Amino acid sequence: MEKPIVAISTAVNYAGIGIVRLSGPGAIQVADKVFVSPKNKKLEDQKTHTIHYGFIKDQDEVVDEVLAMLMKAPHSYTKEDTVEFNCHGGIHIVRKVLSLLIEAGARPAEPGEFTKKAFLNGRLDLSQAEAVSDLIYSQNDYALKSSVGQLRGNLREKIETIRKAVIYNTAFIESALDDPEHISLDGYPEKLEMDVDIWLATLKSLLDNAESGKILKEGIKTVIIGRPNAGKSSLLNVLLGEERAIVTDIAGTTRDILEETINLKGIMLQVIDTAGIRNTKDAIEKIGVEKAKQYVDKADLILYVIDASDKLSEEDLDIMKLIGDKKTIVLLNKTDLALNVTEEEVLSTINSNKSDIKVIQISAKENEGITKLEETITAMFYDGKISFNNEIYITNARQQSALLEASQSLSSVKTSLEANMPEDFYTIDLMDAYESLGKITGESIGEDLVNEIFSKFCMGK
Amino acid sequence: MEKPIVAISTAVNYAGIGIVRLSGPGAIQVADKVFVSPKNKKLEDQKTHTIHYGFIKDQDEVVDEVLAMLMKAPHSYTKEDTVEFNCHGGIHIVRKVLSLLIEAGARPAEPGEFTKKAFLNGRLDLSQAEAVSDLIYSQNDYALKSSVGQLRGNLREKIETIRKAVIYNTAFIESALDDPEHISLDGYPEKLEMDVDIWLATLKSLLDNAESGKILKEGIKTVIIGRPNAGKSSLLNVLLGEERAIVTDIAGTTRDILEETINLKGIMLQVIDTAGIRNTKDAIEKIGVEKAKQYVDKADLILYVIDASDKLSEEDLDIMKLIGDKKTIVLLNKTDLALNVTEEEVLSTINSNKSDIKVIQISAKENEGITKLEETITAMFYDGKISFNNEIYITNARQQSALLEASQSLSSVKTSLEANMPEDFYTIDLMDAYESLGKITGESIGEDLVNEIFSKFCMGK
Repeated sequence: MEKPIVAISTAVNYAGIGIVRLSGPGAIQVADKVFVSPKNKKLEDQKTHTIHYGFIKDQDEVVDEVLAMLMKAPHSYTKEDTVEFNCHGGIHIVRKVLSLLIEAGARPAEPGEFTKKAFLNGRLDLSQAEAVSDLIYSQNDYALKSSVGQLRGNLREKIETIRKAVIYNTAFIESALDDPEHISLDGYPEKLEMDVDIWLATLKSLLDNAESGKILKEGIKTVIIGRPNAGKSSLLNVLLGEERAIVTDIAGTTRDILEETINLKGIMLQVIDTAGIRNTKDAIEKIGVEKAKQYVDKADLILYVIDASDKLSEEDLDIMKLIGDKKTIVLLNKTDLALNVTEEEVLSTINSNKSDIKVIQISAKENEGITKLEETITAMFYDGKISFNNEIYITNARQQSALLEASQSLSSVKTSLEANMPEDFYTIDLMDAYESLGKITGESIGEDLVNEIFSKFCMGK
Repeated sequence: MEKPIVAISTAVNYAGIGIVRLSGPGAIQVADKVFVSPKNKKLEDQKTHTIHYGFIKDQDEVVDEVLAMLMKAPHSYTKEDTVEFNCHGGIHIVRKVLSLLIEAGARPAEPGEFTKKAFLNGRLDLSQAEAVSDLIYSQNDYALKSSVGQLRGNLREKIETIRKAVIYNTAFIESALDDPEHISLDGYPEKLEMDVDIWLATLKSLLDNAESGKILKEGIKTVIIGRPNAGKSSLLNVLLGEERAIVTDIAGTTRDILEETINLKGIMLQVIDTAGIRNTKDAIEKIGVEKAKQYVDKADLILYVIDASDKLSEEDLDIMKLIGDKKTIVLLNKTDLALNVTEEEVLSTINSNKSDIKVIQISAKENEGITKLEETITAMFYDGKISFNNEIYITNARQQSALLEASQSLSSVKTSLEANMPEDFYTIDLMDAYESLGKITGESIGEDLVNEIFSKFCMGK
């Protein structure tokens, strides 16, 4: 006998509201065992998508005053009967309500199990289910848009279109081979080759976007460097000043990251103290430079702060070497003073292809040029390389690898076609592509993998 | 023009669901600006207490897939139009939805402002509103029950009954003094004195329960002490073993507290490492003992672990001195070995009135006697001193002080009555009592105090 599943679906901490979510066959009956409305109405007798005020009771004792949200099968997230109790958001209360529901006949849900039900019951395909998790963990607007798009089925649509065409062609070839008298394959390979080219182009564009997708998902890893007293800390304070509230808000979640990163309009700034870049002869200092180099290597963008009221120093030359061919914005700081460094001087000193280097004059102290800095960062990444005209960004390594497999199989088909191989030779590759694409939507993967994918979800989703 | 208020009402962290709550005049119109249902239905046209699937849009871009919970005035928590959006529970998403609603015309709510609306609109009196906050922060079943009772109006009922009687009597006296020809006060003072005695008894019982209320609210502060190797850590592990999941779950919330406390069936165990209690001649060791003494002083209950396989040591004698007259359970540990310490020996060595000292034999290593320990703790506190037969526990210092004031005013009335003072002499005291009781229900307090009370609430409630 299958039991409904139950979990705390909101973050567990002191808050106004906490939700305990119950779903599956018998969920409403279990809910009715602990929920009492003032007029003694039963949730079972109510219409779907209605809200009911009442109390959670432990025997005769009232445990909490709640709202019960009723969603009947199939009109719920899981497509099964669902009751969500909006409780007072205390740690003890939501746990208490959870345990009462377990006593009443529910079983604790596994992480991601509600979404797994949604997948198994056909409400979401696997690419959409994975988008749910990406959505929750999205750190910025761009990642949010990308995962909402995927959740709404953008990726599924593209994959399904190719998949249907592939299976149709495979079936056609098989039929023709079985019944050559009635079905002719004359001129067919040429037509198929054109189709394969189109499919490959679609897969290629999806794969090409995977790198941008990574940036979307994780933000642009931005490293601020500069010699001591160049104004790094002032810049940091200016940037922090605008977003301090947000930084403070997240404080509870991931301390280690917080202390070193700022979220600036969806862009992650990783702050590297390169005070160590001074005298590379000293052993300890060398370690500092080594460390800075590692961060620079991992960065998507360098913000290099120069004290432009002074001449370029030896340390600056060291830093320029570090930068290499990384995308860099050079900040000529201290425009409130007389400037002794020009844009031309910087560009000619940094020995690289200058296309990826921008120079901006700022005064961190007077908060000048900061808006221009933000616009420049945005323009560098989003206007040029990333746009949102229905493009789909693959941010998921599993999906990426399945796309790659499908692409390889279709390339083999193309090679066979070009070599005029017989049709039955490449139907196997077509079927491989079909299988690989099915992994993205979840139609051709095993139970183990499904379990593994959902185990990475947060509890209560 | 009054704007609706908006806040994130769930704890902000990655989770399945996050709620953004919107309430006040125009809330539904503001919600309709960002919410789009698949069939383009407007929330404004829907019935109260219904749930609607749809999307939150930023211009033309979908930001999240949500459920909108619609509760129309006056059938909502605030008695004003309310929409709660159940979003995906990501940090970025809920903030995004919040900011879109602010752009659409809502204003950010202050902490506790939804409950303040509920109070100002007469849905809750002040004692009930305060119970909401207590409920959220309740740490155990007992505190939960107490605050739910208060939220349901138990305290309000008692206070209102006395208040009505007090105002009726004051009015009666005033009328009689105004119109002595028709209204006689003969025999009235005797009748009033009986009433005052009843009111005083009620207030006294409420005040007497305030100390128990504190324990209810905060749990029993339990300190484990014992000399090195007595088995404190083993005891801790046994106790932790049963509740490990809970300890782990709270880990994100308050690290400092977590490392030192265990929640054992609603009882807070504070673990004090008294390894320092060894040689009090050493200066540093003395600080250790001083520290231990402070913890012992603040404790509601001491668990004193003795290595009973050994003889009582000099350290044990020091610890016994520390304990003083605190409620203590002495644990003769290591029953798995031969015992060299008896219950009688312990009791005669601890020089105090033994009534509050219990001795239990345990083996922390073999997990023996632990159930008995738990039962003993429960019995000591809950069976004897605290029960839940409709009793009301005052856990709030503000309420306690208003009760005390009312009690003092009524005592003055009683003194005046006993001294046969004229009626108009004590009507002032009666009115003072009326006012003081009104502070509990919120009927006679100023706006500043109301603001201060609600400012202590968590955001989104």
